[in-house]
Amino acid sequence: MPRIEELETPAIVVDADILETNIRDLSTYAAAHHLNLRPHIKTHKIPEIAHMQVAAGSSGITVAKSGEAQVMADAGLADILVHYPVLGAAKLERLAEIARTRRVTMAVDSLVTAEDISAAASAKGSTIGLLVEFDVGMRRCGLESPEDGKALAIAIQKLPGVCFRGISFYPGHIKCAAENQGPALEEVSARIAEITASLSGAGIACEIVSGGSTPTAYQSHRVAGLTEIRPGTYVFNDRNTLDAGVCSLSQCALRVHVTVVSTAVSGRAMVDGGSKTFSGDRLSSGAKEGFGYVVEDPSIRFLAMSEEHGHLDLSESDYRPKIGDRLTIIPNHVCTCVNMHSRIHYHRGGTVEGVWEVAARGRVQ
Amino acid sequence: MPRIEELETPAIVVDADILETNIRDLSTYAAAHHLNLRPHIKTHKIPEIAHMQVAAGSSGITVAKSGEAQVMADAGLADILVHYPVLGAAKLERLAEIARTRRVTMAVDSLVTAEDISAAASAKGSTIGLLVEFDVGMRRCGLESPEDGKALAIAIQKLPGVCFRGISFYPGHIKCAAENQGPALEEVSARIAEITASLSGAGIACEIVSGGSTPTAYQSHRVAGLTEIRPGTYVFNDRNTLDAGVCSLSQCALRVHVTVVSTAVSGRAMVDGGSKTFSGDRLSSGAKEGFGYVVEDPSIRFLAMSEEHGHLDLSESDYRPKIGDRLTIIPNHVCTCVNMHSRIHYHRGGTVEGVWEVAARGRVQ
Repeated sequence: MPRIEELETPAIVVDADILETNIRDLSTYAAAHHLNLRPHIKTHKIPEIAHMQVAAGSSGITVAKSGEAQVMADAGLADILVHYPVLGAAKLERLAEIARTRRVTMAVDSLVTAEDISAAASAKGSTIGLLVEFDVGMRRCGLESPEDGKALAIAIQKLPGVCFRGISFYPGHIKCAAENQGPALEEVSARIAEITASLSGAGIACEIVSGGSTPTAYQSHRVAGLTEIRPGTYVFNDRNTLDAGVCSLSQCALRVHVTVVSTAVSGRAMVDGGSKTFSGDRLSSGAKEGFGYVVEDPSIRFLAMSEEHGHLDLSESDYRPKIGDRLTIIPNHVCTCVNMHSRIHYHRGGTVEGVWEVAARGRVQ
Repeated sequence: MPRIEELETPAIVVDADILETNIRDLSTYAAAHHLNLRPHIKTHKIPEIAHMQVAAGSSGITVAKSGEAQVMADAGLADILVHYPVLGAAKLERLAEIARTRRVTMAVDSLVTAEDISAAASAKGSTIGLLVEFDVGMRRCGLESPEDGKALAIAIQKLPGVCFRGISFYPGHIKCAAENQGPALEEVSARIAEITASLSGAGIACEIVSGGSTPTAYQSHRVAGLTEIRPGTYVFNDRNTLDAGVCSLSQCALRVHVTVVSTAVSGRAMVDGGSKTFSGDRLSSGAKEGFGYVVEDPSIRFLAMSEEHGHLDLSESDYRPKIGDRLTIIPNHVCTCVNMHSRIHYHRGGTVEGVWEVAARGRVQ
């Protein structure tokens, strides 16, 4: 097999040893704290990695789209949470069909969506578990008041083809807690207590309290009442998690290999990957500047991107580029970066072991 | 065939009538001004649309990557400019092989790259035309001094397997001329005159002077000495070209159809497309705010994106969303939006006529 230095660039390359360590470490943590780990496959979209996560102890997987659920179900994944308020007859029919042979759960924040799911599942003779989603400050999806949540849970209990299983929320923004942009873990604990007490008052028990994302993953035991976490990014990590201080360089499993293709403009070097290789995502916290971390010399600023050009600014670096130099870059946001590619290579110690198809890429419905 | 309102969302939908008009109008302009039109296929990556462009009078096509050239050559496109300093043995071997049966031209700004192309073409017994690229202020690729360009042209003339055909530059940033972020067309004319005079002094004629991009496309006759333009976006247009004042709404051929999936958070509506549907690209000029133009009500602010959620802010709109509502959105940057998808639908008058595979998507090498 070739060395990673021999791959055509730009190439997305995963260190399989780091990947396995990341998967094992979070599984060990979750088991120690009696938390179910249900990784979000949005990060990799690769059935082989989902199977690695389940083999390491994950209780199942999380997806966002019915097409992603289809790819993962076809690949033999048995327990799938669709943490998205999926709407549309064809999509719900697809999920209801999957639920005939797989355990399918969905998150909802409206009666309309719950009723549509109920109708689809009933027509297929399957049952879909439902979580009621609450907003904990991100202002995206999720009910705001415990009373509204209780009313929805009661209504769900009366619908055929679905069964109420608990509540969920998305705390990804807690990574910004240090910058006072999100609620502290204690506030989330208090909110869970308030919601579960309200439900309990109506005689409704929550089998599942689902939250968690990569930045807060190893703090999950501090959230009282939590039963399940849904991190995605932890398998690879990226410049966002590095910048947030929740991983080290040695835990970054994915790098983008690029080649310097132009040095004609003074003070700059152009590499052969831009926004169609890295995705256009900004850094989600901190200075928000730059489009990746140049491993060989972090003083090289990844200043800008065109679609196929990465613009490196050398004004703060001693690096003197030559055409043909190879550099390796950790992307800002690994989930959107992987999504740009149809396949990624994996290696051990620099020797390529194989290629994974990003099988669920482009399944936007 | 279904109506566009029946497609599963998110759906990328092209109005074939508008597309044909956009292609025809620019072809008519280019012919009237004796300019070769060589559209960049980065916008659509679809061989069928490339053939429409050639049938309307384009002299050939432009691509950025060897993999894109391969897809287009396999689909029968006969005259391909790779306007990128492609580096790497496998990629150059691919292009040299294509050059055995197709007319292939490449842009270079270094002797190293020209020598590698020469070696690859010589090994295959083919000939690749070369343009020497100059920077006109974007600080991306391209030589800065006419003297360096002349030296490179002279060196190219001595290499086997390649032939010097002219010069090129990328003036995309001229769209910002109104904001004093780029040179005026007159400055570009002066720069071309300076470069061609320098080459002429060495007895070197420029068969091709290649520039042009969508924002400046209809001003190309004002650039003295130009022989060829390479616009891409004009086939579909987007919020960038709308915002820059170089197209009207009636010339926007592509829209993203989305469904409102959550209204739980007050003052917001969530739609089922985010950065994995639209791409994360910001608006390239003006206020740079927002991620798309909501056709049904432009006062709806497309405030933020998660990977699969579009966050609509309703604070300045009278729109009261209902779950299941469909909206149509013009993306900020249509080239990166199309690149997120494996296929796009096209229609006339709302009736779907077919689906195109985005065949060159993901060909990043």
